Amino acid sequence: MARIGIIGSEGRMGEALRRAIAAAGFELAGGADRGDDPARLADASDALVDFSAPAALEGTIHAAVGAGVPILIGTTGLDAVHHAMIDSAAGAIPVLQTGNTSFGITLLAHLVEEAAARLGQEWDLEVLEMHHRMKVDAPSGTALLLGEAAAAGRGIALTEHSERGRDGHTGVRAPGAIGFASLRGGTVAGEHSVILAGEQERIVLSHMAEDRMIFAHGAIRAAAWLIGRAPGRYTMGQVLGL
Amino acid sequence: MARIGIIGSEGRMGEALRRAIAAAGFELAGGADRGDDPARLADASDALVDFSAPAALEGTIHAAVGAGVPILIGTTGLDAVHHAMIDSAAGAIPVLQTGNTSFGITLLAHLVEEAAARLGQEWDLEVLEMHHRMKVDAPSGTALLLGEAAAAGRGIALTEHSERGRDGHTGVRAPGAIGFASLRGGTVAGEHSVILAGEQERIVLSHMAEDRMIFAHGAIRAAAWLIGRAPGRYTMGQVLGL
Amino acid sequence: MARIGIIGSEGRMGEALRRAIAAAGFELAGGADRGDDPARLADASDALVDFSAPAALEGTIHAAVGAGVPILIGTTGLDAVHHAMIDSAAGAIPVLQTGNTSFGITLLAHLVEEAAARLGQEWDLEVLEMHHRMKVDAPSGTALLLGEAAAAGRGIALTEHSERGRDGHTGVRAPGAIGFASLRGGTVAGEHSVILAGEQERIVLSHMAEDRMIFAHGAIRAAAWLIGRAPGRYTMGQVLGL
Amino acid sequence: MARIGIIGSEGRMGEALRRAIAAAGFELAGGADRGDDPARLADASDALVDFSAPAALEGTIHAAVGAGVPILIGTTGLDAVHHAMIDSAAGAIPVLQTGNTSFGITLLAHLVEEAAARLGQEWDLEVLEMHHRMKVDAPSGTALLLGEAAAAGRGIALTEHSERGRDGHTGVRAPGAIGFASLRGGTVAGEHSVILAGEQERIVLSHMAEDRMIFAHGAIRAAAWLIGRAPGRYTMGQVLGL
Repeated sequence: MARIGIIGSEGRMGEALRRAIAAAGFELAGGADRGDDPARLADASDALVDFSAPAALEGTIHAAVGAGVPILIGTTGLDAVHHAMIDSAAGAIPVLQTGNTSFGITLLAHLVEEAAARLGQEWDLEVLEMHHRMKVDAPSGTALLLGEAAAAGRGIALTEHSERGRDGHTGVRAPGAIGFASLRGGTVAGEHSVILAGEQERIVLSHMAEDRMIFAHGAIRAAAWLIGRAPGRYTMGQVLGL
Repeated sequence: MARIGIIGSEGRMGEALRRAIAAAGFELAGGADRGDDPARLADASDALVDFSAPAALEGTIHAAVGAGVPILIGTTGLDAVHHAMIDSAAGAIPVLQTGNTSFGITLLAHLVEEAAARLGQEWDLEVLEMHHRMKVDAPSGTALLLGEAAAAGRGIALTEHSERGRDGHTGVRAPGAIGFASLRGGTVAGEHSVILAGEQERIVLSHMAEDRMIFAHGAIRAAAWLIGRAPGRYTMGQVLGL
Repeated sequence: MARIGIIGSEGRMGEALRRAIAAAGFELAGGADRGDDPARLADASDALVDFSAPAALEGTIHAAVGAGVPILIGTTGLDAVHHAMIDSAAGAIPVLQTGNTSFGITLLAHLVEEAAARLGQEWDLEVLEMHHRMKVDAPSGTALLLGEAAAAGRGIALTEHSERGRDGHTGVRAPGAIGFASLRGGTVAGEHSVILAGEQERIVLSHMAEDRMIFAHGAIRAAAWLIGRAPGRYTMGQVLGL
Repeated sequence: MARIGIIGSEGRMGEALRRAIAAAGFELAGGADRGDDPARLADASDALVDFSAPAALEGTIHAAVGAGVPILIGTTGLDAVHHAMIDSAAGAIPVLQTGNTSFGITLLAHLVEEAAARLGQEWDLEVLEMHHRMKVDAPSGTALLLGEAAAAGRGIALTEHSERGRDGHTGVRAPGAIGFASLRGGTVAGEHSVILAGEQERIVLSHMAEDRMIFAHGAIRAAAWLIGRAPGRYTMGQVLGL
């Protein structure tokens, strides 16, 4: 029976992960939060699931590599330094970092990449997301994941073509840009739309999560899938066989 | 310079087709409507475009085959007898029958087929459409086209799994059904959504036409593409290189 | 402490009502289902909440009137005979029958009535709803409630102007019609849109329930509000002070 | 026959205004653009319609006051200095400044004010808009108009409670904030949604313009309505009798 440890176990996502571990018939190895030592938890776990904060990532990765256990990283708001740490860890352990662990989003990203590739840059591309009022970063990790899929479809680098936080005199839309907009309010579990706007027609590809449990179920499924794999950096598409 | 003849030239679609022929730099061979002889128009045309009524289809096909000119059929509300006529004509001339001639819908159908194939029947599938108040049939030809794409993705026959016109005591949704719902009102050029509804998450794949000119442009592009082809039944996907 | 009895206590709504009674600090008087005697439950309750089936309504009303306790009726799929029973009961006890007990829907119905009154019949009016795959009737009770609000705004009778279950050759939209369309799939708690479609512009007024608990909370709030009122037929608007 | 002068006559809106003047049976007094003298146009007009740029507003107002003709101002991106100019002009001539001249948006703003007043600050309020790729400012004037309506409903000042251009680490949503998000792409004539997000339910109030002619028709109707009025600052609600 797989033992799963939770980094960031106190919030609403931590609670959801505990329920998903029980629903999958796995064992909860324990939780580590601010002030706790993740190394002890890593030693007691077959896999770690991390939905905490970027500042905690370095310690968590160090613990996972030290114990030689795989890790699923769902924390959002990561920067280039964090991604370098993750790449480095992937030399020693199996790692899966993702902005979204749901089946639906994983498929949606696949469809977005294909649509972006086929429609070309004459169709403007926008990513819209809405989340509950407690979310602290924008755009969501999932919105960025969808933007990355679109950029891959076009064969461009997302960071060089993003239009974020439009406000004031913006000028006309830059050709080839990928735009992002974020809504916040209520208890929305997570909604994402990729809008492809052409000459007098639009295609919109959307995903709606009715409950954050879908992310917890997917995260636990992915963490269990990582156990026993060779070191490396994996994707949700691989977990789900897409 | 290609000469295009319009079957059903008097309505709003006829006007749009005339503008699209001019925009593409082609020649309008003329129009045929109720009471006119389509054979004369067929003789004067390099290709025919038909957006008239199912009752007129037999005469139109007869004229096209007689003159040996290709035909693009965009008329909606066709039944099995009409499709048999079209199949028969395709032995003699190039024919393209489609519920929608826009680039966006053609791509959307492709994405719907893929999503339906990957998600399986645990995800319920619904097709929703809205059109202007003057539309006389439901669901739209495009909605049926999207339903066919979904059925193809699942490897089932649409006609055996459709749930249409829900009203009253319907009972629970049939497993594997493909549902259809139609909205009518105002001047809406055409909006379609395919909804895939799973366990606490949904994927929605949509298309919005802002102006019916997109259908006219696509129809003329397809009619011109048919000129000089071998006899057979073609698809918009082939025209657009998808 | 108010004692609330549940008619139809076994399904998912029954479970939600039990949780809402506990959350409100009330006492669960018990539940009555197919085969049970509702009179015994009515005698033990300060108010009844009924989310069962139309066929059970006559017995339930008889029990409530016999015990002199108020009743909140949320059962959908009622016909004219059921409404006559409810009117008759309202001569003896406080009764509130509604297709939807949420705060948001109650406000939405109010906005729909106002918009319908101001825009007039040149703006076509459609009601769209989506619910989970287990729902057995269409349109939803809430969709009909919104249609009634629109009809009231226009000063017409809904039953004479409904367009339901569009399928096949429908002809053009009837002027002044109120259309209904129903989607079914997945686990959707309930989504409703009223679309007002005019000449090249549309207004859409929507409500989305993320969880069916909102209906349970509203039902219990309304049932408690009925306790001690004079006999009569009440509305959610009165309960919520709109 | 009313003579209407257009400030900003060269762009797409200028073209739409010319068609609307013709459709209404009025006379086009002429157009003034960058480099032209608006005073000459004002002298030849019974009313001016201004859809140009903020930088041109001072000259336009000066011309309108000098000639004593009413003015409809639809230019967006105005600041407090511009509004002070407009207030001052309203002492001498009839003035109507608005972010949107459509009937539908005018009604929507009315519904938003009512919903915001009734739901209170526990329901988070967001304004979302999408426009074509050529639009140079964000949020749209109409989005701000809807935000003002919401703020009026809550009895607060919009400028002190706006959350615009979310990007990066934003922290949790501020209680009572009114959020704005802007999408750009394709040829979208204009779509606006006001989202009220409460505890597990949402109300969304939306408007979709299918064609920018609706704004031109409304602007010309409003300009004609201003002719002969007493000096003062008027609203679209007054023009449309809401």
